[in-house]
Amino acid sequence: MIISKIIESVPNFSEGQNERIIKKIISPIKNKRGVKLLDSSADKDHNRLVVTLIGEPDSVQEAVLNASLIAIENIDMNKHTGEHPRMGAVDVVPFTPVRNISMDEVIKISENFAKNLATDINLPVFLYEESAKRESRKNLADIRRGEYEGLADKLANKDWQPDFGPAKPHETAGATAVGARMPLVAFNINLDTDDKSVADDIARKIRNSSGGLRYCKAIGIDLAERGIVQVSMNLTNYKKTSLYQVKEMIKMEAKKYGVNIIGSELIGLLPSQALIESAEYYLQLEDFNEEQIIENRLLEDL
Amino acid sequence: MIISKIIESVPNFSEGQNERIIKKIISPIKNKRGVKLLDSSADKDHNRLVVTLIGEPDSVQEAVLNASLIAIENIDMNKHTGEHPRMGAVDVVPFTPVRNISMDEVIKISENFAKNLATDINLPVFLYEESAKRESRKNLADIRRGEYEGLADKLANKDWQPDFGPAKPHETAGATAVGARMPLVAFNINLDTDDKSVADDIARKIRNSSGGLRYCKAIGIDLAERGIVQVSMNLTNYKKTSLYQVKEMIKMEAKKYGVNIIGSELIGLLPSQALIESAEYYLQLEDFNEEQIIENRLLEDL
Repeated sequence: MIISKIIESVPNFSEGQNERIIKKIISPIKNKRGVKLLDSSADKDHNRLVVTLIGEPDSVQEAVLNASLIAIENIDMNKHTGEHPRMGAVDVVPFTPVRNISMDEVIKISENFAKNLATDINLPVFLYEESAKRESRKNLADIRRGEYEGLADKLANKDWQPDFGPAKPHETAGATAVGARMPLVAFNINLDTDDKSVADDIARKIRNSSGGLRYCKAIGIDLAERGIVQVSMNLTNYKKTSLYQVKEMIKMEAKKYGVNIIGSELIGLLPSQALIESAEYYLQLEDFNEEQIIENRLLEDL
Repeated sequence: MIISKIIESVPNFSEGQNERIIKKIISPIKNKRGVKLLDSSADKDHNRLVVTLIGEPDSVQEAVLNASLIAIENIDMNKHTGEHPRMGAVDVVPFTPVRNISMDEVIKISENFAKNLATDINLPVFLYEESAKRESRKNLADIRRGEYEGLADKLANKDWQPDFGPAKPHETAGATAVGARMPLVAFNINLDTDDKSVADDIARKIRNSSGGLRYCKAIGIDLAERGIVQVSMNLTNYKKTSLYQVKEMIKMEAKKYGVNIIGSELIGLLPSQALIESAEYYLQLEDFNEEQIIENRLLEDL
């Protein structure tokens, strides 16, 4: 029995305006067997293209590498302007585990991809997030600080030697950040009050930065139209900070204010495991095996 | 965007002993593109082969039809003995909706399959369960009563004219029952008591036959080894009688005895929707869309 490993990648390219070039960059992803293009969105103001794809690890790497080669051939960073911070034609390439694959394996994939990209193009590449070799490179914003224009100076600094490739910017393509990270789960919970300070207080109690759950970011939001407030969250590791934990903790905190949860929402994509895990918790399932889910069996030979 | 329709079929063939024939029957299912063989189990005492497959509707039909033609070529019901009730070489062929397909569509598929089988082989075929054209044919046991040996007499009765094919048994293959049905979900809930009468009482309160939930069958079971009891259930329509309903209802009934749920288990395969629906209930999700699940996107182009 072959169990397919599935990863996601969301490469960001510094071209959001020229339709012809955007099409060219996407084409090796669109046409690659074993890969599924989920979304591509080009933003003119950001002058940036964000592509979401999933599939079998080798095919995903190959598709993203081919798209990157086309991007580098067609983008000149010396002429690039846009609102979004950026340092390269292929600005950032994250890889995310989806199915039957560990974070350690995805880190190896990101290293392999980074090495190939650096070698093929003679381009400096930084490893970030889970792939970072030192704490100071975990955060993408730190790596990108100074942007394309500051890259030559940054690479001259011995603290900012790239993980792969030469210690000087590529003449037209700058540099690239590559890394493994968990998928973000965007989970919002609605409360039956119009008092935003209640949502703010609860957000503070549950988020990591002020003493709450390790992989939870949270803010209070006013949903004026509905006359209610919301605790809006990003779960940066749904396996370690679970949806049901967050929900039960908010329910508990809300009691202090005599407030109730009246609903919740999930924004964008998420792995089935994030929901299955909550079903397992609430139904008190013992020894449930993911292979019992029929659809998972369909994915085995992908 | 192509959304793949996925069905399951579990054809039962009257050969559980001859390995060579069993292999032959399975081969068109094993080798069919767009179909995945999940399981095949041959029972020598039952002298019966049960095959589980999933895939795209046309491919599933074609694979099961080809397997059926081979079964009929190789099985002589006049020589068949076994413990399990049976009336034909291809005894029963159920079809089940798995993904992106309605019960009405699966009923049409079962009718189409039944017609093709009857025409290709000149064999009497009965439609059962959801596909049955009259109440008296919903239950497979009623159709099969009298078995292969009683088939000639049964088909001579005007109440038992077949839905397709001739009103006399095929000389070596008898007759076949074909129908659409929901997948069974086998769900068991464990209680922190060793008093089996508690499980029996709760089973009575929650099962359809004695006044409970419409699509729930339930019995009490003694798990002597663990010193506890269990309410053991089959949910015959998980969309209409949900896992969370059953769990919450048992929790409520158990209170009467001062007993608690200490765990639960799911046996065998089930569609992801059965679990996702419980996560939606407990997390209070508004407007969740199945397409937000990454893995479902992978299945789109199957």
